[in-house]
Amino acid sequence: MVKIGILGVGTVGASVANILSSNADIIEARAGKKIVVELGVVRDLNRDRGVNIKLSSNPMDIINDETIDIVVELMGGVDEPFKLVKEALRRGKAVVTANKALLAYHRYELQELAGDIPFMYEASTAGGIPIIGALKNGLTANHIESIQGIMNGTTNYMLTKMIKEGANYDEVLKEAQRLGYAEADPTFDVGGFDASHKLLILASLAYGIDAKPEDILIEGIENITQVDVEFAKSFGYEIKLLGIAKKVDEGVELRVHPTMIDSNSMLAKVDGVMNAVSVVGDKVGETMYYGAGAGGDATASAVIADIIDIVRGNTTPMLGYKRGLEGKFELLPEEDIITNYYLRMEVDDKSGVLAKITTKLGEFDISIESMLQKSHRNASHVKLLFTTHKCTEAKIQEAMLELRRLDCVHGNITMIRIEK
Amino acid sequence: MVKIGILGVGTVGASVANILSSNADIIEARAGKKIVVELGVVRDLNRDRGVNIKLSSNPMDIINDETIDIVVELMGGVDEPFKLVKEALRRGKAVVTANKALLAYHRYELQELAGDIPFMYEASTAGGIPIIGALKNGLTANHIESIQGIMNGTTNYMLTKMIKEGANYDEVLKEAQRLGYAEADPTFDVGGFDASHKLLILASLAYGIDAKPEDILIEGIENITQVDVEFAKSFGYEIKLLGIAKKVDEGVELRVHPTMIDSNSMLAKVDGVMNAVSVVGDKVGETMYYGAGAGGDATASAVIADIIDIVRGNTTPMLGYKRGLEGKFELLPEEDIITNYYLRMEVDDKSGVLAKITTKLGEFDISIESMLQKSHRNASHVKLLFTTHKCTEAKIQEAMLELRRLDCVHGNITMIRIEK
Repeated sequence: MVKIGILGVGTVGASVANILSSNADIIEARAGKKIVVELGVVRDLNRDRGVNIKLSSNPMDIINDETIDIVVELMGGVDEPFKLVKEALRRGKAVVTANKALLAYHRYELQELAGDIPFMYEASTAGGIPIIGALKNGLTANHIESIQGIMNGTTNYMLTKMIKEGANYDEVLKEAQRLGYAEADPTFDVGGFDASHKLLILASLAYGIDAKPEDILIEGIENITQVDVEFAKSFGYEIKLLGIAKKVDEGVELRVHPTMIDSNSMLAKVDGVMNAVSVVGDKVGETMYYGAGAGGDATASAVIADIIDIVRGNTTPMLGYKRGLEGKFELLPEEDIITNYYLRMEVDDKSGVLAKITTKLGEFDISIESMLQKSHRNASHVKLLFTTHKCTEAKIQEAMLELRRLDCVHGNITMIRIEK
Repeated sequence: MVKIGILGVGTVGASVANILSSNADIIEARAGKKIVVELGVVRDLNRDRGVNIKLSSNPMDIINDETIDIVVELMGGVDEPFKLVKEALRRGKAVVTANKALLAYHRYELQELAGDIPFMYEASTAGGIPIIGALKNGLTANHIESIQGIMNGTTNYMLTKMIKEGANYDEVLKEAQRLGYAEADPTFDVGGFDASHKLLILASLAYGIDAKPEDILIEGIENITQVDVEFAKSFGYEIKLLGIAKKVDEGVELRVHPTMIDSNSMLAKVDGVMNAVSVVGDKVGETMYYGAGAGGDATASAVIADIIDIVRGNTTPMLGYKRGLEGKFELLPEEDIITNYYLRMEVDDKSGVLAKITTKLGEFDISIESMLQKSHRNASHVKLLFTTHKCTEAKIQEAMLELRRLDCVHGNITMIRIEK
């Protein structure tokens, strides 16, 4: 029998406890041992959590209990769980966590501290989808060429509504909040920060690259409008919020932003709150992993898979290899990213304007690939939408600054990156 | 350093040897040890295989070599590899195989013989997609409700051509043969037998069910015509050759057949030679795994992942648990399968015919859900196409026999099962 302690019995913690009980038969068959929850730790002992386990309000009751072999951390936050998880590892307890923020900031320290003690985190990224397992075990023969993922259900739900139903950003955000998909302050999701944590975890498995959220390009979906969605459609794209890790000659690109992707790609077909991660290996080609990225039971499914793996005695290193062995990979500076861009701007409805804009773009060696002009009824401005051939992020950013200074350009310019 | 021996250096074997050499750096980083090919065994020593390894024509040179820790079986066939693999296990050597036929027939004997010796077979099913790993490790918290998979690239290529380009079966088979996707005798692929082997492997992981290809319902795509494809389209379906394992109250359904599936499902979007497997767990919901189902490098990617897993010392049981623990699952008899059906038949272009057919169906409690009638120009027959509400396989088979006996029905009746 293996005893576990759960730090944080919220939605996911309650699911873990309940599934360990309801699916005990099959879990024991697969793990080879009975797994029981010895103790759960919660802040407020008076709240009913719908679980039939012993509860305490003191995390040290788990850490100090020598009969507990595995600590499951589901508290959220960074500093407090970091402290507790470190202490658990020091006592030789295996750790399972679903905490993406903890890993986005401290995964290398934790790896070092864990050493040969199992430290697992399948649930931290893309919920119930076993994407960590795929990278840690399934694709190990490959150099990973790229990872592209829809890793945030809230924004994918919102974009799907905008694409399929023509809804506006504000409407769809309100609906997502009403349905509990988005928080009252939705910034963490819609701003791309949640996805960035998950991307950093996957990038460590693929490239051993040590970056923090502050180090990488993160843009949210706040500026996407129906005009962009329609433009994308007419040119064979869909707009998805992607986390992208990509090996280039000079390093590894890490970025999170709304992206126009081929509407025939598998990722473009992932609708609603679902998540999916596409991984390209140099030998296996593209593989894709699809499923629920959130939800108590789906996340608990991943947590329990990790627990079973530990009980079976499996000993894959935390990040799939020892640190340093892939040390040649460095984060590519943002300005060196090369891709195609879509720009939307308001310009004067006058002859000569297009010439001015293309001339200005030409000064930065940027050429237009396809274009659409949309006139407002009875207005002196038109919307100019176009995509560019490949150029660097540095050039497009400089060009956008200069374009904004032109008399014929009004207001902000919206830019969306394209992945072909 | 870990030494491996490769039984059978064909396309996949050569890829394994070449990737172990070209990606040696990252493989060593992930495995923690250097992995080298000590010997390859081939039938014909004179053929150039494009590999830089020592070759022998005697399999026993691998089996008898005490320095070889892992035997990689890539010979194909059943009896000869079964004999050799058993001998390797008896000598305590770990085994990795890509041989689906071997497993379709002997997986339980091999599991028993292997005991605690690693026996792995990720490459046997869906090529480079780590679907075995997902079932063995990623989804272990779940009772598996169903598995539905496109597990044969040849037939998916052919059906995609028929759906997207309106090609006819005969044309597209010829093209698949020309491109090397189909054999001169294509029966193993187009008849659904290849997919059945893979389905049986997955069903063992999910349900511990011991069935052989002869025990289950297998139908191929040979009778699918453009008429069926068009009908499917107009009612929101696509036709895919699926391997299906599904838990029902009374047991487990195992079947391989062309299937009409919702054209909005993720599986319906899997085109060309690609494979994908959708798994529904009682807790995680639907997850899907997509990638290349065949090809030297993609298959070798899975073989090497297994080798690395063994070198790391991981010890998950061969089928994910000890036999017998899931023993309550029994194969549901074919005739008890309950689903919706599509039927196509030629009938007289006369009044009263439809009444005769619906009356006959009524005798078996089968009712029609949607219908289409297609008249030939200048002909006395029309094509009658319809789908039924749910009924048992026994009823639909009996009804089809009776319908064929009606004077107004001409020739064979084509039936395609529907999964909603």
